[in-house]
Amino acid sequence: MIEQQKLITKNWFEELRNQTIDIFQDIENSNSKSLKKNKFSYKKWKRKSSGVQDHGGGTMGIMYGDIFEKVGVNVSTVHGKFSSKFKQQIPGTDKSGKFWASGISVVAHMNSPFIPSFHFNTRYIVTENSWFGGGMDMTPSFKNLKNKNTLHQNLKKMCDAHSKGYYNKFSKECDKYFYLPHRKETRGDGGIFFDRLNSKKFEKDFEFVKDTGKSFIDIVPQIIIQNIKKKWTKNDKIKQKIKRGRYAEFNLLYDRGTRFGLETDGNIDAILMSMPPEAIWK
Amino acid sequence: MIEQQKLITKNWFEELRNQTIDIFQDIENSNSKSLKKNKFSYKKWKRKSSGVQDHGGGTMGIMYGDIFEKVGVNVSTVHGKFSSKFKQQIPGTDKSGKFWASGISVVAHMNSPFIPSFHFNTRYIVTENSWFGGGMDMTPSFKNLKNKNTLHQNLKKMCDAHSKGYYNKFSKECDKYFYLPHRKETRGDGGIFFDRLNSKKFEKDFEFVKDTGKSFIDIVPQIIIQNIKKKWTKNDKIKQKIKRGRYAEFNLLYDRGTRFGLETDGNIDAILMSMPPEAIWK
Repeated sequence: MIEQQKLITKNWFEELRNQTIDIFQDIENSNSKSLKKNKFSYKKWKRKSSGVQDHGGGTMGIMYGDIFEKVGVNVSTVHGKFSSKFKQQIPGTDKSGKFWASGISVVAHMNSPFIPSFHFNTRYIVTENSWFGGGMDMTPSFKNLKNKNTLHQNLKKMCDAHSKGYYNKFSKECDKYFYLPHRKETRGDGGIFFDRLNSKKFEKDFEFVKDTGKSFIDIVPQIIIQNIKKKWTKNDKIKQKIKRGRYAEFNLLYDRGTRFGLETDGNIDAILMSMPPEAIWK
Repeated sequence: MIEQQKLITKNWFEELRNQTIDIFQDIENSNSKSLKKNKFSYKKWKRKSSGVQDHGGGTMGIMYGDIFEKVGVNVSTVHGKFSSKFKQQIPGTDKSGKFWASGISVVAHMNSPFIPSFHFNTRYIVTENSWFGGGMDMTPSFKNLKNKNTLHQNLKKMCDAHSKGYYNKFSKECDKYFYLPHRKETRGDGGIFFDRLNSKKFEKDFEFVKDTGKSFIDIVPQIIIQNIKKKWTKNDKIKQKIKRGRYAEFNLLYDRGTRFGLETDGNIDAILMSMPPEAIWK
């Protein structure tokens, strides 16, 4: 049974990757003024480990465009054994320490300072336990209540269809997670964030994870369209790059995924794909 | 006696700050093609703490120029009590946990991709023990053996005048410290780095610390002059900004001073003054 769950989650993450890329390329090329078509390029990587057997790997997809200044869409499916150091932090690793993990992660840094950055991730982890994690959040360079409402109203509606408590719980977890204590600032407008999701009903949890992904590729185009016609000045762009400095600070100082990846010899390019294309520190 | 040592070290760090700023402003304005004079601007800050009494503070100096794209020169003198968490990491804090610390730190990010970034810091720390720490290192965007030799030959000569073992020991410590394990890269060309320096002869150690500072303001102009006439392309500048991304990664992921500052509620602007003005992640 768990083997089938691994297969269908992995397949879904890959299907969602394909859908995301189709939608993003379509937005890019129907709005870009340049003649050449911008496309994702791909790079496969294999997880290196001291053992001999296959430890899985992933595919990075990245596009540099006129609308999407830099957008990465990664899928990976890896397996192996946690070191004794990491075992302590991960549930269900008391006996063998074996794990399997599959997921998709997306980070979009937009060219327009008036379109927020978007981040999305969902994953399925199997040890002696199994659970889903993920979420999405949005980081604007300029406050915009309409965008924030679009994000949160859509997320609330999606969450409510699954469980009345989800939106409240997961949006609070998002605010708590995406916080820069040294700046006393939130990273952005929040969103939803969940981890260790296991209601003991795999199908129910998986449906929620799928809907989180579907919401992401529904919300992002809405917010892009709301702002795509706005002109910006050189100074707006500088402000965006300063905000991106905060994004870099969060990822390197606090993001658990980044730290986890770096400390477990993950693929550097895939881990740091989330970094902004250009950042400024004044 | 310790009170007099505090006073003379603090005075030296401030004197060195003044000398550094004079030299850097002079380099900037004798080489810049713009008509306006570029100057350091200053911002004083006070160390906030829960107590009522004075906890010291510092002065940040920063200049944005044509030769020095962004250069910060900070002095600070602070005192207080370490939290029980930090006590464990700091020698001589078993009894009261009281500390006093004074220092100067300089980070110069240059406009020309052919002039390396320079970093320098010296400090005197007093708990129930007392010691000096500091060093300097250099981060080029492009390999240049002449620059590297200028740095190391000058440092070796300076170290050798104090103790035959210093250069070997402190340059190794520098290479070990300024290393990015996730990139399997050194930060740059190295330099010297020392900590917990206490030979039981205050005067001897202080002379070494002073000479480290004097070397810094002697070496930097030499390396600038060696490269200032070189023209660069847009692509060279992009490569420099990518290298600066590594600099940002090091500071946020590994630098003990940055982490220490952020975790002890230090002054954010002073702590992050070391960040590059513009960085790129591809």
